[in-house]
Amino acid sequence: MAKVMAPMRGAAAMPAGPTWIYRFEDGSASMRDLLGGKGAGLAEMTRAGLPVPDGFTITTEACLAFYRNDRRLPEGLDESLRRNMALLEQHTAKRFGEGANPLLVSVRSGARVSMPGMMDTILNLGLNDRTVEGLAALTGNPRFAWDAYRRFVQMFGKVVLTIDGEHFERVIAARRQAEGVATDPQVSVEGWRAVVTEFKALVQGETGSPFPQDVYAQLLRAVEAVFGSWNSKRAIDYRKFNKIPDDWGTAVSVVSMVFGNMGDDSGTGVAFTRNPSTGERRLFGEYLSNAQGEDVVAGIRTPMAISELEKAQPGVYRQFVQIAAKLERHYRDMQDMEFTVERGRLYMLQTRSGKRTAQAAVRIALDMVDEGVISRDEALRRVDAETLNQLFHARIDPAQAYTAAATGLNASPGAATGAIVLDADTAVAWAKDGRDVVLVRAETAPDDVHGMIAARGVLTQKGGATSHAAVVARGMGKPCVAGCENLRIDERARTITLAGATLREGDAITIDGTSGAVILRGLPLIPPPSTLPEWLARFLGWADERRRLGVWANADTPEDARRARELGAEGIGLTRTEHMFFGPDRLPIVREMILSDTPEARAKALAELLPFQRADFEGILEAMDGLPVTIRLLDPPLHEFLPPLEELLVDSTELRMTYGEDDARYREKHRVLERVRELHEQNPMLGFRVCRLGIVYPEIYAMQVRAIVEAAVALRRRGVDAQPAIMIPGVGNLREMEVTAQQARATIAQTLEALGAGAAELSIEVGTMVELPRACIVADQLASVAEFFSFGTNDLTQTTLGYSRDDAEASFIPQYLERKILSDDPFQVLDREGVGELMRMGIERGRRARPKMKIGICGEHGGEPSSVAFCDEAGLNYVSCSPYRVPIARLAAAQAALANAGPREGTDQD
Amino acid sequence: MAKVMAPMRGAAAMPAGPTWIYRFEDGSASMRDLLGGKGAGLAEMTRAGLPVPDGFTITTEACLAFYRNDRRLPEGLDESLRRNMALLEQHTAKRFGEGANPLLVSVRSGARVSMPGMMDTILNLGLNDRTVEGLAALTGNPRFAWDAYRRFVQMFGKVVLTIDGEHFERVIAARRQAEGVATDPQVSVEGWRAVVTEFKALVQGETGSPFPQDVYAQLLRAVEAVFGSWNSKRAIDYRKFNKIPDDWGTAVSVVSMVFGNMGDDSGTGVAFTRNPSTGERRLFGEYLSNAQGEDVVAGIRTPMAISELEKAQPGVYRQFVQIAAKLERHYRDMQDMEFTVERGRLYMLQTRSGKRTAQAAVRIALDMVDEGVISRDEALRRVDAETLNQLFHARIDPAQAYTAAATGLNASPGAATGAIVLDADTAVAWAKDGRDVVLVRAETAPDDVHGMIAARGVLTQKGGATSHAAVVARGMGKPCVAGCENLRIDERARTITLAGATLREGDAITIDGTSGAVILRGLPLIPPPSTLPEWLARFLGWADERRRLGVWANADTPEDARRARELGAEGIGLTRTEHMFFGPDRLPIVREMILSDTPEARAKALAELLPFQRADFEGILEAMDGLPVTIRLLDPPLHEFLPPLEELLVDSTELRMTYGEDDARYREKHRVLERVRELHEQNPMLGFRVCRLGIVYPEIYAMQVRAIVEAAVALRRRGVDAQPAIMIPGVGNLREMEVTAQQARATIAQTLEALGAGAAELSIEVGTMVELPRACIVADQLASVAEFFSFGTNDLTQTTLGYSRDDAEASFIPQYLERKILSDDPFQVLDREGVGELMRMGIERGRRARPKMKIGICGEHGGEPSSVAFCDEAGLNYVSCSPYRVPIARLAAAQAALANAGPREGTDQD
Repeated sequence: MAKVMAPMRGAAAMPAGPTWIYRFEDGSASMRDLLGGKGAGLAEMTRAGLPVPDGFTITTEACLAFYRNDRRLPEGLDESLRRNMALLEQHTAKRFGEGANPLLVSVRSGARVSMPGMMDTILNLGLNDRTVEGLAALTGNPRFAWDAYRRFVQMFGKVVLTIDGEHFERVIAARRQAEGVATDPQVSVEGWRAVVTEFKALVQGETGSPFPQDVYAQLLRAVEAVFGSWNSKRAIDYRKFNKIPDDWGTAVSVVSMVFGNMGDDSGTGVAFTRNPSTGERRLFGEYLSNAQGEDVVAGIRTPMAISELEKAQPGVYRQFVQIAAKLERHYRDMQDMEFTVERGRLYMLQTRSGKRTAQAAVRIALDMVDEGVISRDEALRRVDAETLNQLFHARIDPAQAYTAAATGLNASPGAATGAIVLDADTAVAWAKDGRDVVLVRAETAPDDVHGMIAARGVLTQKGGATSHAAVVARGMGKPCVAGCENLRIDERARTITLAGATLREGDAITIDGTSGAVILRGLPLIPPPSTLPEWLARFLGWADERRRLGVWANADTPEDARRARELGAEGIGLTRTEHMFFGPDRLPIVREMILSDTPEARAKALAELLPFQRADFEGILEAMDGLPVTIRLLDPPLHEFLPPLEELLVDSTELRMTYGEDDARYREKHRVLERVRELHEQNPMLGFRVCRLGIVYPEIYAMQVRAIVEAAVALRRRGVDAQPAIMIPGVGNLREMEVTAQQARATIAQTLEALGAGAAELSIEVGTMVELPRACIVADQLASVAEFFSFGTNDLTQTTLGYSRDDAEASFIPQYLERKILSDDPFQVLDREGVGELMRMGIERGRRARPKMKIGICGEHGGEPSSVAFCDEAGLNYVSCSPYRVPIARLAAAQAALANAGPREGTDQD
Repeated sequence: MAKVMAPMRGAAAMPAGPTWIYRFEDGSASMRDLLGGKGAGLAEMTRAGLPVPDGFTITTEACLAFYRNDRRLPEGLDESLRRNMALLEQHTAKRFGEGANPLLVSVRSGARVSMPGMMDTILNLGLNDRTVEGLAALTGNPRFAWDAYRRFVQMFGKVVLTIDGEHFERVIAARRQAEGVATDPQVSVEGWRAVVTEFKALVQGETGSPFPQDVYAQLLRAVEAVFGSWNSKRAIDYRKFNKIPDDWGTAVSVVSMVFGNMGDDSGTGVAFTRNPSTGERRLFGEYLSNAQGEDVVAGIRTPMAISELEKAQPGVYRQFVQIAAKLERHYRDMQDMEFTVERGRLYMLQTRSGKRTAQAAVRIALDMVDEGVISRDEALRRVDAETLNQLFHARIDPAQAYTAAATGLNASPGAATGAIVLDADTAVAWAKDGRDVVLVRAETAPDDVHGMIAARGVLTQKGGATSHAAVVARGMGKPCVAGCENLRIDERARTITLAGATLREGDAITIDGTSGAVILRGLPLIPPPSTLPEWLARFLGWADERRRLGVWANADTPEDARRARELGAEGIGLTRTEHMFFGPDRLPIVREMILSDTPEARAKALAELLPFQRADFEGILEAMDGLPVTIRLLDPPLHEFLPPLEELLVDSTELRMTYGEDDARYREKHRVLERVRELHEQNPMLGFRVCRLGIVYPEIYAMQVRAIVEAAVALRRRGVDAQPAIMIPGVGNLREMEVTAQQARATIAQTLEALGAGAAELSIEVGTMVELPRACIVADQLASVAEFFSFGTNDLTQTTLGYSRDDAEASFIPQYLERKILSDDPFQVLDREGVGELMRMGIERGRRARPKMKIGICGEHGGEPSSVAFCDEAGLNYVSCSPYRVPIARLAAAQAALANAGPREGTDQD
């Protein structure tokens, strides 16, 4: 190999020290981290021979050095900047700051990923009292020159000098009024001259210094301002929302100005190589003649569709179409381009991968495979799995204009419109009458579930993204806006108050769980597709070929099971039997069971529940004919089925004060209160629940197991291939596993015998939900008895981190996210470092004892893409998620398989 | 080596199969597992040439085989029994079941460890209608023979045939009445003959079969009965209480009878080689002439002190003294012996290590070292560390007779007598007036703590061994009886009801937290020693030389700290600052802080709290002059400082119904209610607490740190060597550790500067309490910031197992222990397999990042011997426990060091 070192690119004339600046011709698309997306795009286009204005890019490293250096430009940058401006002068044959033939530049920010509108750009830099005259002379268009100058002073004043933009707008408005014109293009050259004079006075007044006439001073301050904009509040907020690291920094591109506002043969446009909404393969965009880019954004004039440019400037259009095609081919992705036409000459100002809707993303990926541009694997990688979420919810008709009265937490996506109801029973009653209702509660509890089932959507005053309302609503695929803190509910008056308006129960309301908006009237909605559209089915079919993880769903009803299956679920990973206990026909029996003083009374109540449970299981098993259905035995503490303690306390105090202590009504209320008190727990999450219930009250689990067996046998005799599995919740030690599994297996055997069925007719696996740290630690012992594991990562997260889901989201988690003490809400994105490590331990130990053991996950993380990727890495067999997240999980699993190529940890895929 | 195999001992004539029986001369002390304690003792004495009646032992293996064999004697045992009975006949020259010279035997149970009175023994077996005549003829004492026969029928009837003993007693009582005599020894020979006849009729009537005259049948059935007694309810209960495995089984010794009731030159006795209460080195015991062992137990006649035997039978006494000394020398431990004198001839029937009080155990161990019998290490091993607990509590004067009205949970040891008070404030008020009070509550909460401090003891209706009352009382070394379920408290009437009696507030009551007894009057108490007695200090001094673990204490007050230091604590491992917030002079300020709407109001309240905290810390730091004091910053959720939600709900409902919604009283109450509701959490244990508080409200931790620094500097300037360390609770990730440690270090620096003190004057380590599974997993990260770790095993147990301490003990844990799903309450005995494994992970990872890091434990497990042993194994530097458990921990740590000899895991002892 040659030992001669190539000179450092773009640093030929530079002394020692970092290379702060790259000319466009020295950069490339691969240097995105250093040059930002915009800089890398300009460099790549320059290298590809496309018409790009001359310029250079100051690196993101310089930005980081700026912050390290206490917000001062790093050493060497000033000198390098001057050297590169000199090169620019040579290439353009113009001079920076010289009156005769002035070089003007734009200064543009550009981070590694696009942060649209988040950071600042300054145009026309290089204008001052002298160069404006030169520009006027050179272009023969003083009005254009003075308009450009005033734009520059205005932009510089706002962005660099942080003067309130209103001040500038007022000057212009006054000028328009003085000249008696309606729009800026009508203002005279004298007008703009006067405006510039006033602007300069404004700058002097606001900052105490004159507007800088030294063009290098302009440039240096503009660069500092762009660097500074990286840490503006809106940029920080944007990064937080989009999970962009703070330490990437922004690059700054300095580009020689081209002008779209030099007459009708000039103009500016924005275009996509394909339709970003639908994915249609056709150039899509807008063009505004005789205008600068900011005019398009400002929306003062209505631009024309890009296709109309063909008529106006056919040559330019043809050239642009060719360039667009070339760029798409080059980048092998749909491009979002900005361009300017200066006196009939086309300049490309930017190109980048275009943002698109989920539908467009999928269709473009499909088309590009069909066009032979990308491979199927690349197509799968191209679509952000999480965005598929958009496809399965009702939306507010975009044609509707509305104002949100408040914005709560977008807890479960989709929109709902209906009559306000303030309690679950009313919701059920009104829904029976065929009314659409929206359940509005301070917060929901398990005994609101039947109301949630009946409602179109749920709105709560309290609670976070993992509050009961949010979790249950997401599970049901039902819209929910949670934690709408300004909402006031008066249950006595049956009214709600929000944003100063008071609505009565029965009034119409609309909530948008996708955005969190609450609208105080009924808006028309666009319904979601009822099945997978053909194009999505095709795309997900490719995903299925690639993924190693099974994708199952969590479903508690036959409807949910059917929906999950339609969306591609290969099994049910979690059926929560307690949701069945909340039906209005069951709850009284459940309460009777809990309040009963004798085992006999309990047995009687359980016998009454048996047919309900059997019917529930039959429905789900039939819907999943031929696929596994994992049924979890009763999980929550019993007091969840009784009225809340608070309500009983108030009611019984009222009864006592009204009727006295001897009144029968008081005594009955008091009896229930006493039992609720007995069952009341300081920390129900860590209390008398899960398998602990099944050990202390084995008759409850026995009833459930019996119902499962009876349902399965009945179905099989009807030719339905019912495949139930029994999951014991919350096991923490070997004896719990042994006792509960032995009870379950004995009940299975007894029930089969009673039905005259043999073990050959139905074999049911008994496994456990791994949801305690201790279960992960002793997983080898548990696996000696359990035939499968399913990680319950909701509870495992609660115990591993010591966070109560119900409380933490409402108290400290928001602050923790804000202050970056947590990078993600651990109830939304699996905590790999903590919970993930325990899972790996559980998997490794479990498979040590039972090598081919099937292991899944049924926490809410099972439908979140980055958590799915972890599950793939960790060697799980399947993920199980809400029905509507099945498509997301299918794609995420394929993406994970592509990313984690090679054999997985200790797994034996079947 | 010789290839010739020795014949199997005791099995010379046996065919293939297990050896079910060992003759005494073929056994030894080392065969205790197989022969039981009694059999091994008899064998050992036989081998030592002591006078022991001839006999043999059926093994514990035979007992286990009996249970495996569905409660039938295993194959080969019958035959072996007959062979050994034949040998016995040869050796004694008597014949089993033969009239002329009948061989009689006792059949005695004996498990691996002594279970006094728990299992059954049958004497005089071999008597029947024929042999009774032979015995009469042989002894020339028909009265003795018929008395022996009736005793045998009676015992056999009760034990083997399970006939109610009352029936037999009634027959004897009728006989005494018929003969007009008062006691059994006065009954005539004819009387006993008649009794035997009636007994036999009774057996026929009750069982439908005649009393067995076949002596082999008697023997086989007796052996079966002894085996069966292993699973009697009282034996099972005893084992459960004493943690003895169920699968050890019992052995059965068959011993040729000797008779202590053959006249005044006969008798029976029980003796200890030293005093089992005090440890005094003097033969201690009782002797009853002309009696069988059961007569001593029955207490019909008063036995004489063993020393008086010297006068009655000087030769026998001398021989016994020699034998006792020989046995003690042989076993190198204090012996508990049973013996019989038959017509002037001494027979040893049993010897075993004697049970003793803690005091006796220590003093005997000390004396035996001084006597050169055992080494210091052996002395340390000899004393059960847990029993030292007995020494540090007030006791009910044993001279007092009393009946307990109820027995609750013995939640915190010691006895207390005082006036009943029903709330904390009354407790404080009455205590100020100099009254001793006992706080009686349904359950306690943190805002009862000042009342608990004021009270002599605490009695609660609800809650288990780790309920708030129990934990806090133990921490204070204060007696507590918890979970006294029959107790009824009427707060309106100010009365309590128990066992049918109603007492008023102010009435005297006595509780015994050692036994759980509740006595409805005031009993006189014997106070505990105020310092370590000299003999205990000497003994623990030896322990200190051996142990590798430091022993620190948990202390929240200067009094606790002083006490801990007196008992040997080498530092404070946990000072809970929140207990200081509950003082009646502080609580209103704390509430003000929590209820304040503005940061300014909060700052004002904190400024008011500062001098209190500073004074608290000064007191503790001064008491620990020269020793480290680890102060934990605020830990519990804020709502613990506010009135309970339930109380507020009732009060505000009452106010609303009485005065209406506009009344100021209602509105104020409602305001507090609203704030409590806001702070209310579903699972406070997993909620907004620990370092989460210090991150969201940094000003609280800053105030506490400032108070610590000010206190320490003030003391140092007075010449006191204050050594505070700051412990951040509940850290779960690196950022929490960084943020809180940085805040604390900044406050330390600022405060030192404000005081004009340099960092040289005071250096304070900042560490963390490791109490979440996640903290163990990321311990390496935490240790990069934290300078020390202390395992908070109470909370770590809660999260690892998913058990809420407050709830689990009251609901499922008792059942879990009963059904052996848990072997121990994990809040009392550290769960090595689960929590312990996480601790090992935390230690290993923590030391990986900071090799010499000091790591301790400050959960309640720090004072429990088997948990201390784990801490030694796992390589901790110290344990920290309640002051009164410091002596226990010192001894347990020494025992652990002796047991875990060799270097410890990854530790670098300093």
